Amino acid sequence: MPPRRAWPLACATALLLAGCHGLPVPSATRSGPPLTAAAVLESARPDDWRRPDPQNLLCLDLGKGRVVIELSPLLAPRHVANVRALVRERYFDGLAIVRVQDNYVVQWGDPDAGKPELARPIRTAQRQLPAELEFRLPPALPFHPLPDGDLYAPQAGFLDGMPIARDPQTGQCWPIHSYGMVGAGRDNALDSGGGAEMYVVSGQAPRHLDRNVTLFGRVLQGMDRLTSLPRGPGPMGFHEKPEDRPPIQSIRLASDLPEAERPRIEVLRTDTETFRRWVEARRNRREAWFHRAAGRIDVSNIPIPVR
Amino acid sequence: MPPRRAWPLACATALLLAGCHGLPVPSATRSGPPLTAAAVLESARPDDWRRPDPQNLLCLDLGKGRVVIELSPLLAPRHVANVRALVRERYFDGLAIVRVQDNYVVQWGDPDAGKPELARPIRTAQRQLPAELEFRLPPALPFHPLPDGDLYAPQAGFLDGMPIARDPQTGQCWPIHSYGMVGAGRDNALDSGGGAEMYVVSGQAPRHLDRNVTLFGRVLQGMDRLTSLPRGPGPMGFHEKPEDRPPIQSIRLASDLPEAERPRIEVLRTDTETFRRWVEARRNRREAWFHRAAGRIDVSNIPIPVR
Repeated sequence: MPPRRAWPLACATALLLAGCHGLPVPSATRSGPPLTAAAVLESARPDDWRRPDPQNLLCLDLGKGRVVIELSPLLAPRHVANVRALVRERYFDGLAIVRVQDNYVVQWGDPDAGKPELARPIRTAQRQLPAELEFRLPPALPFHPLPDGDLYAPQAGFLDGMPIARDPQTGQCWPIHSYGMVGAGRDNALDSGGGAEMYVVSGQAPRHLDRNVTLFGRVLQGMDRLTSLPRGPGPMGFHEKPEDRPPIQSIRLASDLPEAERPRIEVLRTDTETFRRWVEARRNRREAWFHRAAGRIDVSNIPIPVR
Repeated sequence: MPPRRAWPLACATALLLAGCHGLPVPSATRSGPPLTAAAVLESARPDDWRRPDPQNLLCLDLGKGRVVIELSPLLAPRHVANVRALVRERYFDGLAIVRVQDNYVVQWGDPDAGKPELARPIRTAQRQLPAELEFRLPPALPFHPLPDGDLYAPQAGFLDGMPIARDPQTGQCWPIHSYGMVGAGRDNALDSGGGAEMYVVSGQAPRHLDRNVTLFGRVLQGMDRLTSLPRGPGPMGFHEKPEDRPPIQSIRLASDLPEAERPRIEVLRTDTETFRRWVEARRNRREAWFHRAAGRIDVSNIPIPVR
C-alpha cells in the first residue's frame, strides 16, 4: 500500500501495544495488558459471539442487496410482534424507500399511506400502536453503564446488543438513537406509529428523538446500502417522484426463509468481558497512527462487531 | 401532505410555541419567549449572517455537483496557506475521491501519491507540514462554552463558525471532529500530512481523532454529494479500482473564480444572540411533533445554518 494511504490503513492495523508516542498512557485492563480493538476481537472466545434468533432477524431485500435488522422485544414487545405480523402478511413487498435525509434518517413504507383510497390495506397487523418509549430492566439482565457517562441521560450502555440509557433513580430504561437504530415513524400523536413506516438513524445520533418515538431494533448488516442512496430532493429528504423511490423487493423474517437463504451472522455479545475490553480499546486507541488516546467514549461511538 | 408523512414534516414546521404536551417545559430565552429553530431563523437580522471571505472558500467540483468548503486560518494557518497554494497550482484537478468509508470519512487526493514514479508532482506548495493540532484563543474572540458540557473535552462551543473544544486551565483550543469537518490525511508521523490528501467527516463525530490530525475547514454546502457516493469495497472504504473512484474535476478558491461562478452563500454567525437562541431551540425542541424536550445538546448535534 502506498505510504500516503497508510493513515487509514494504520487505523485498523492490529499492532499489539504499538507505540503511543509518550502521550497519555491508558491503564491496563483487568485481565491483561491493553490491546488494540483488533487484538481484542482476535482474542474473543467462540461463546463471546451469539447467533441472533432467526425470529428476530428481518431481511430487507432491495434487489441490489440485503439489509439485516435485529428486532429487540426487550425494547418494544408490541411493536416487534406487530412488525412480525406486517412482514408475514407481506405488507412491505413492493413498497419503497420514501425518504433519505442526509445525516439523519432513511425511511420506508407505503408512499400512499395517507391516501385512504390508495393506501395498501393492513389485514392482520395493527396500523397504529401506543408508543413504547421506556422499559424496566429485567432482573436477570445486569446493566453496566459506560465509564464516561452520557450527555443526554444519567447512564448509558448496552443491553442485549442495543444501546440504552437508564435513570438509576427511577429504574427506567430507554433505547438510544445511535447510528443504525430502527424505529417506527409516527405522526404527531404518540399512538400514531406501529411499524408500517420504519426509519433508521443514518447520521450523527439524533438524541433529541430519544423517548419521543419507538425504537424496536438495529441494523446488523448492510447499512451502507441505505446510507449511500441518493438523498431525496424534497423537504426533509423525501422523494417526491415515485420513480426516484428505491423499491423494496421484500422484507422477510429469517425464520420464514429456507435455511440456505438465512443470513449467517454472529454478533459480539455486549455482556461479556471481551466487549468491555472492546470498549476500552476504543476509548484508548493504541494503533500506531494515534498520538493521543481520547480516554473517553460516547455510547454512539461504539460499533458492535458483527461477523 | 399525507398525514402518515407528517412525522418528518412536523419536525421542521415552524409552529411558534406549539404545544409541548405538558412535558418538560423549557425556560424562556433571555430576549423573549422560547421559539422553534425555524422561528429563530425567521427572526434573524441581516447582520446575523455573514458572507465567507472568498479567499477562504474552496469549490470542489465533481462534475455532478459542487461542494463548498470554508477554510479556517484560525484552526491551522499553515495548512490553509498550503491548501491555497495546492489549489492555485491546480494540484487536485483530475485527481479523485479515493475512499468512502460508511459512517466515518470521505477522502480525496492522488491515488498514486505513494508511488514516486507515478505521483503527481507538487510544484510550489509543501507536500508535508507539521500538524497543527491546537491553537490559542485570540483575545478579540470571546468563547462561549455550550451549556451542557462535552464528553470529550472540558468545554465545547463554536468559534468563527467552527466547532471547537477548550481547556480553560491551559487556555488551549482545538477543533472538533464533527460532521462536515475537513482535515489533512496523514501517515503515522504527525508531520506527514499537509493538505494534499483531504478527508471530511461523514458520520458519527469521530472524536477520538481530535488533536490527532489537522482540521482546517468545514463543508458549508454539498455534503450530500460526498456522503451519497458508493462506499469503497476495499478495507476501510478504499476504492481499489481506478474506474470506481469518483473523479475530481477541479478545486478552486472562490476568489480565483469570476464573480458569476462564486458560490452565493451566507452562514449564520456563531457569535450572535441569534445563534445562541438557535442552540437553545435545538436543545429544547418545541415543534408539535415532540413530546419531550431533551434539555441537552452535544456540540456535534448543532448544524450551522447556511442560506
